[in-house]
Amino acid sequence: MLSDIEICRVSKLLPIAEVAQRAGLLDSEFHSQGLHKAKVSLKSLKRLAPKPTGKLVLVTAITPTPLGEGKTVTTIGLAQGLAKLNHSVMACIRQPSMGPVFGVKGGAAGGGYSQVAPMEELNLHLTGDIHAVTAAHNLAAAAIDARIYHEQRNGYQDFEQRSGLKALRIDSKRVVWKRVMDHNDRALRMVTIGRNEADKTINGFEREDGFDISAASELMAILALATDLKDLRARIGKIVVAYDLNGNPVTTEDLQVAGAMAVSMKEAIEPTLMQTLEGVPTLIHAGPFANIAHGNSSIIADNIATKLSEYTVTEGGFGSDMGFEKACNIKAQMSGKAPDCAVIVATLRGLKANSGLYDLKPGQPIPESLFECDQNALEAGFENLKWHINNVNKYGVPAVVAINRFPQDSEQELLALKAMIEALPHDVEVAISEGFAKGGEGTVELAQKVVQQTEKHVEFTPLYKFDQPTEEKLMAVAELGYGASSITLSDKAKAQLEEFKTHGYDNLAVCLAKTPLSISTIGSVKGAPSHFDVPVRELKLCAGAGFIYALCGNVMTMPGLPDKPAFMNLDLDENGDIVGLS
Amino acid sequence: MLSDIEICRVSKLLPIAEVAQRAGLLDSEFHSQGLHKAKVSLKSLKRLAPKPTGKLVLVTAITPTPLGEGKTVTTIGLAQGLAKLNHSVMACIRQPSMGPVFGVKGGAAGGGYSQVAPMEELNLHLTGDIHAVTAAHNLAAAAIDARIYHEQRNGYQDFEQRSGLKALRIDSKRVVWKRVMDHNDRALRMVTIGRNEADKTINGFEREDGFDISAASELMAILALATDLKDLRARIGKIVVAYDLNGNPVTTEDLQVAGAMAVSMKEAIEPTLMQTLEGVPTLIHAGPFANIAHGNSSIIADNIATKLSEYTVTEGGFGSDMGFEKACNIKAQMSGKAPDCAVIVATLRGLKANSGLYDLKPGQPIPESLFECDQNALEAGFENLKWHINNVNKYGVPAVVAINRFPQDSEQELLALKAMIEALPHDVEVAISEGFAKGGEGTVELAQKVVQQTEKHVEFTPLYKFDQPTEEKLMAVAELGYGASSITLSDKAKAQLEEFKTHGYDNLAVCLAKTPLSISTIGSVKGAPSHFDVPVRELKLCAGAGFIYALCGNVMTMPGLPDKPAFMNLDLDENGDIVGLS
Repeated sequence: MLSDIEICRVSKLLPIAEVAQRAGLLDSEFHSQGLHKAKVSLKSLKRLAPKPTGKLVLVTAITPTPLGEGKTVTTIGLAQGLAKLNHSVMACIRQPSMGPVFGVKGGAAGGGYSQVAPMEELNLHLTGDIHAVTAAHNLAAAAIDARIYHEQRNGYQDFEQRSGLKALRIDSKRVVWKRVMDHNDRALRMVTIGRNEADKTINGFEREDGFDISAASELMAILALATDLKDLRARIGKIVVAYDLNGNPVTTEDLQVAGAMAVSMKEAIEPTLMQTLEGVPTLIHAGPFANIAHGNSSIIADNIATKLSEYTVTEGGFGSDMGFEKACNIKAQMSGKAPDCAVIVATLRGLKANSGLYDLKPGQPIPESLFECDQNALEAGFENLKWHINNVNKYGVPAVVAINRFPQDSEQELLALKAMIEALPHDVEVAISEGFAKGGEGTVELAQKVVQQTEKHVEFTPLYKFDQPTEEKLMAVAELGYGASSITLSDKAKAQLEEFKTHGYDNLAVCLAKTPLSISTIGSVKGAPSHFDVPVRELKLCAGAGFIYALCGNVMTMPGLPDKPAFMNLDLDENGDIVGLS
Repeated sequence: MLSDIEICRVSKLLPIAEVAQRAGLLDSEFHSQGLHKAKVSLKSLKRLAPKPTGKLVLVTAITPTPLGEGKTVTTIGLAQGLAKLNHSVMACIRQPSMGPVFGVKGGAAGGGYSQVAPMEELNLHLTGDIHAVTAAHNLAAAAIDARIYHEQRNGYQDFEQRSGLKALRIDSKRVVWKRVMDHNDRALRMVTIGRNEADKTINGFEREDGFDISAASELMAILALATDLKDLRARIGKIVVAYDLNGNPVTTEDLQVAGAMAVSMKEAIEPTLMQTLEGVPTLIHAGPFANIAHGNSSIIADNIATKLSEYTVTEGGFGSDMGFEKACNIKAQMSGKAPDCAVIVATLRGLKANSGLYDLKPGQPIPESLFECDQNALEAGFENLKWHINNVNKYGVPAVVAINRFPQDSEQELLALKAMIEALPHDVEVAISEGFAKGGEGTVELAQKVVQQTEKHVEFTPLYKFDQPTEEKLMAVAELGYGASSITLSDKAKAQLEEFKTHGYDNLAVCLAKTPLSISTIGSVKGAPSHFDVPVRELKLCAGAGFIYALCGNVMTMPGLPDKPAFMNLDLDENGDIVGLS
């Protein structure tokens, strides 16, 4: 079989204007960016508002191996399968981060015959949205340190006289806005900035700082959750970047940088239209990392797609404890649009890995032994799938399990797994999905099951309401969302919670960051753990995004590169074409 | 008069496809990026190769005030003036850096009725070239620290066995590749990275590092100087990022990251086509900062434009000691295409500022008194203009002085200045340029003088040849290029020079970084200084770009934000349109 990029290159793509027109957009509602990308104007939302809203299908997964279980393959494959059934359909996915593209995981365009194309444009830069988020984020960071420097170098009074501005008196030990970069760069996790030669202050005042990966920026969550440009601007202005010497919050509005940040993100708020290899229109918007970020595609993209099509297929990163949880509790509660059905992607290798009988580490290849038949391992790992089916149903959402078939999989084992799922008492259907090898032809059964499940009435039940006390909301995600027996806030987190309350930051959602490799907060704990604690080491107020962000366990918000990063395979060939991207 | 962005918004622009077609590009040679931008394919170069090469006009300036003298206004105005004379013409300018846009200087699209439009798209993100440079640069940086970390955490032998790669044994004290960011962020000039809690090494190994502004990246110079994609790829592979424990250079090729860097810059190598307010096709390529970087538009853009048009108007940043010097000694010697004429932009206020009678500081407004008639100040400052005319002629290049008129200027003083220039014995013509207020109508006389001067035969004489010893080349720029009486290398610089020689890095150009606010290396020294020394504090090998970079005086490669940065004015209005950008 050809490699992903080879398949992509030999496929015949439609001009993007034709994709847009077929999707139902007017010529004034999109701007082509080269041959195969277009920015979709938010004007379309207004025109489409009176139209009926289509079904929203949310693709999630079992607890994945570090290489993922093929959620994007299944999302794109399913969209193509629905198109084969002559339904109007769109896919909504997130823009890949260059961190994983150059790091371990590689691209995030799907794979095989279920890809968004051209995959190299999707995986690199795209239309610059992540760069715009990075630029806006770091502008605020530069603004903070410049303000501290100018206010303190000759004293507040001198600053006020010189500039005509009121001193903000930022406490340089209490800056809560880090910098960001769209790379896996562990050396930037903890840095000291503002260093000087000898006793000078020409480079500002020294302080501790750090970099997160751009997808974890609050601005990325704002991009995903904003409903229009005005809402984006308003949310940006609410961001708390620091505290002053009296302990009061300092916002981007106080720094007079919120307007410029919104200006920098003015084009990023428009989703990018692309197509699958079979011509299904696909919107790309917002960023990945449902472990350390909100990590779902945008409300704006969903709103456009569900107005344009009968079915919108989107995905939430990692298992249903991760992206799906955030899609339901944060995104759906903000947008008012709940998923009509969840597709849970499972693989034989992923279930066996969930048996706990194998030692898988991020950055290392999947052992071949995982593809051998092993009923014991499958049964042990099945507990994890059952957990996720049950979890999805808990929100009132009907489920379909998509068994994502790998070429090495045994037919017998696949059928055994299918039978195990069919025997469950849950609200679940199952289909073997062959989107990778066969495109939409390989997902017709899956598409039929999805259509069937979306016909049901959904009594959507999020795990909490925004107006509950924050402790209760955190507890709801830990206990109902993960099945933990308890949640423990560190002293630091407790103090932060008190402070947020003091400043009136209540009634927000909660966004928990934890490892995606376990339902618990410890990556090596596989299967369907119970009787575990969720330790919250630190909280972060994201008043613009509208949630309180909780760092659980030892999760890190800036990944690192492995021994042999994926970038080593990338190059240009004789014709200037990209090779080695997958 | 309307503001720049207001003029831009009410102007009627052509669809970019029409601009491209009128410029002589085939439909297959460009890709529209929205309504008003297009990427120009390098395929065009091959088809156009047999065509005659047009005249290249290089716009430079007197030693400027911190706000600039209107070089881009004059470049765009002159291109429009040439079009009024029914010549086929293109402009080639550099992509503005967001540092100055959000910092002191504001946008760099020209101004008034001589702008590249839409100015907000030019000034913000454009088609993402600077972001691509930033991403490729920081990928190499992440690769360095990841490699150090993986090689050292369990020892070289363990690394080699684990990864199958040969240990590079990078000396972590001798990493010479910093990180970059496209912001004015002084706090990042000197940083400590790889910090850890307690005695862990999970975040890598601690070392001193720093950030430059992205335009100062060697990759930006490579983008400007590469002749095609293959040359770009080859140059990237030659970049020296560190030295190993034996003192041998480590390149991006050694790190196996050069291919991925080239992949990241694959679209950036295509110039972006835009238009002036009067529809003159304009190519935007590479980055600014002729003080701390090569800082000229690209060879590729010039090569396309000079094949498509009779006249190509381009600019070199700051005075003729800065961008013009680098355009002649570095760019023209690499491209083989010398400028046919230089336009020196002068303003009454700028000349009076060069009298040394005023105290101008970056980040502070120009004093109104500079606009009052003052024959003494004008005569004193005139020495600076004379210096630049003489300097341009020294290269064998005929000159035209463009007196860029400001609304507050006195007619009498303008005419006096014109007469002073006409009385000079140099190869120089003069015209008052009113591109800002009148567009091309205001630069017809200037355009006529430029046509006249380009008819002359140019005996182009760069100040040095690449095969001279590096000391001689540095001396040539200092003594012939600046008029210094001496150049002094610090001990550090001397040792670096020896090391470069040892490793065979000879026969390269030299690229001097210094303040643009004086011909000397001290910003406060105005006029036409003589008998000064050029102190070189440090050298940097840029083997990919093809030059040795010399830091002179106290020049800094990462600017800072002022008390009241330009970003404070920027916002979105009720309609979502940008306000406050100039």
